[in-house]
Amino acid sequence: MAIVNSNMLVVKKFGGSSLASPDKIRRVASYLTEEKRRGKDVIVVVSAMGDTTNQLLGLARTVSQHPPKRELDMLLTAGERISMALLSMAISEMGCEAISFTGSQSGIVTDTSHTRARILDVKAFRVREELEKGKIVIVAGFQGVSPAKEVTTLGRGGSDTTCVALAAAFNARECDIFTDVDGVYTAHPGLVPEARRIPSISYDEMMELSFCGAEVLHSRSVEVAKRFGVKVNVRSTFGKELGTIVTRSEEIEAHDVTGITQDLNLVRIKLPSDKDASVKTQAVLAVLERAEVNVRFLHIPPAAAAGGSVSVMIPGDQKESALEHLERELPAGGFELDENLGMVSIVGQGICSRPGIAGRVLAALDSVGARPEMISTTGITMTMLLDKGEVVAAVRKLHTDLGLGEPA
Amino acid sequence: MAIVNSNMLVVKKFGGSSLASPDKIRRVASYLTEEKRRGKDVIVVVSAMGDTTNQLLGLARTVSQHPPKRELDMLLTAGERISMALLSMAISEMGCEAISFTGSQSGIVTDTSHTRARILDVKAFRVREELEKGKIVIVAGFQGVSPAKEVTTLGRGGSDTTCVALAAAFNARECDIFTDVDGVYTAHPGLVPEARRIPSISYDEMMELSFCGAEVLHSRSVEVAKRFGVKVNVRSTFGKELGTIVTRSEEIEAHDVTGITQDLNLVRIKLPSDKDASVKTQAVLAVLERAEVNVRFLHIPPAAAAGGSVSVMIPGDQKESALEHLERELPAGGFELDENLGMVSIVGQGICSRPGIAGRVLAALDSVGARPEMISTTGITMTMLLDKGEVVAAVRKLHTDLGLGEPA
Repeated sequence: MAIVNSNMLVVKKFGGSSLASPDKIRRVASYLTEEKRRGKDVIVVVSAMGDTTNQLLGLARTVSQHPPKRELDMLLTAGERISMALLSMAISEMGCEAISFTGSQSGIVTDTSHTRARILDVKAFRVREELEKGKIVIVAGFQGVSPAKEVTTLGRGGSDTTCVALAAAFNARECDIFTDVDGVYTAHPGLVPEARRIPSISYDEMMELSFCGAEVLHSRSVEVAKRFGVKVNVRSTFGKELGTIVTRSEEIEAHDVTGITQDLNLVRIKLPSDKDASVKTQAVLAVLERAEVNVRFLHIPPAAAAGGSVSVMIPGDQKESALEHLERELPAGGFELDENLGMVSIVGQGICSRPGIAGRVLAALDSVGARPEMISTTGITMTMLLDKGEVVAAVRKLHTDLGLGEPA
Repeated sequence: MAIVNSNMLVVKKFGGSSLASPDKIRRVASYLTEEKRRGKDVIVVVSAMGDTTNQLLGLARTVSQHPPKRELDMLLTAGERISMALLSMAISEMGCEAISFTGSQSGIVTDTSHTRARILDVKAFRVREELEKGKIVIVAGFQGVSPAKEVTTLGRGGSDTTCVALAAAFNARECDIFTDVDGVYTAHPGLVPEARRIPSISYDEMMELSFCGAEVLHSRSVEVAKRFGVKVNVRSTFGKELGTIVTRSEEIEAHDVTGITQDLNLVRIKLPSDKDASVKTQAVLAVLERAEVNVRFLHIPPAAAAGGSVSVMIPGDQKESALEHLERELPAGGFELDENLGMVSIVGQGICSRPGIAGRVLAALDSVGARPEMISTTGITMTMLLDKGEVVAAVRKLHTDLGLGEPA
């Protein structure tokens, strides 16, 4: 029996848009059988078909205001089950052997945080056995199993992380993430027509971009890729484009500024920046932790600044949960909600090390009349809060003025 | 911690039509929370919502002519996952605690026959633990797990068997099967308007009726119920009717004839009844076994009878698979397919023991001009093959002449 050779192994992930119809599933099946016939061992990670996950969430909302997270995970994991079984059937129909595995069967062991579990271990012995038998192995992305045998999910985009974690477990040097865009762009092409595909980007830059709103890759997947040194190639499913390679900073052509991203789906919890600001902010953060609300960005102005505000930015879709807990646990109030702010982030290895970038950013904002509520720089990222109405113009102007539209 | 008391335990199964929409799911949830508040321990077995299973089968057919059975099971088990998670959410929303389990999590251990597995064991320790915590436990019907951790399904109607097997495992004396009809009828009410609900029926009679075409209960569920002495109450989900109790023959009011059923979805494989008939029939049966085609009925006329035919009746939906194997493995042919026959069966404890019934059957058939191709009596069932066009009139006439329309 052949032993899986990591040189011959390919690990590929197909997102929901790549599997949205029986026709698309057949195209993916045909591509995979070709890979197999070229002598590759093939592991393929799949998301749920098209819009399935949102449809299931819609059903959940019709029966429950606050669906228990364990049951949400049970519900949503039906999605990959459908896509993986259909892909397996389509591959068999083309004359190759295939087998599909759930997260649990693939040995994706996670912690117990339903709806946003983290992978603790990959015990992929069943995947290995079937690869050794020559089968194309299809793995349900996004899902795992806790040590207590409970079904968990990894959060939106979690299939990327499944793919990278499997590549790491099999010592693969790289993996392919097939998606509906042909790579990572200097800005969202829908907002900035001159946005360019970035041929290569470092793990740290990609993590910052993902975290700050770019939806191309699950930020946790980049973390895992960095830790295990797996190169991630983000590619378009049905295109011939080269995509973007996410890899070690030593291996990329360095840019001062790599990309811009924005997040228009944030809510600010605003507290007065008075002498009790720190105590009050801590109280708010403690409530948010109990409510399991992510803090996307936190800004506390210098104690000396008069009239400033503490800003705790949370994802818009967690607003209700946050508000419910805050009103119950902090009945004295003392905070305001503000939905008028958007966040713009500039990511690049030169942000902190290269003089002059901050000045060019301020000049660009000025020239489109945008007045940042706050600017903060940490490591390779500069983040600013702007009125939502100013975000698009600011992103376009920054893209031009920072030279992102010019060929690298 | 309370120990589950089988006197306080109720085990209930809801079919797909009872869970076909969020509204119906809420009605079932409300009924179950009432049971819980009356002090019951509640296990509820669910099928997939409405027409989900057929929709998934339709998807499978779009990508594959012959989907591998393992992958079909993977696909179809997505169905109960959705209904059980939604029911659990709806119950939580009403203030009761609930938890849903897959077949695997519930410990429904089966053999490895994908798409028609048999339950080997029920290791329901997780179900027991959660019942002891006071939760309503929801179990995915229809699905199980093989000792090798492969996902299996029990065949159409298999949720009934899950329900009965769980009742047996918990020493419950009875279980409720909620469906879209309010019980078992003397004949199909769509064909025979005077058909009456049967208040109680023996396991053996029910098994024969199920096997001969009545779709109310999975025949295997009745087998399990008989073996473990579980009374099965077949009831309408949203009606107030009493339903039908399936129980030991000693506990029912005996009838000579209990019900009539018919099967119009059969294909006959016909062989000449010559001196080689036995050898040829054996060859055909061996091929069907390899093709995994069920033989629903077999008739070999006496060797002395000149001009008769051997009849091997198979389900219409397995025709293609049977034909493909027969043509490949018996290239010399020697058989014909005939789709013109239907099967009518009369079931009752008096069929063999009570003189006069056969005569009344023949007279009834005669009076509507139906000429049976064959009549065969075994135990509590009399089965006849008729032209499909004669079946409805024959069923109606037999229902009247055998006194089934009269109050018991």
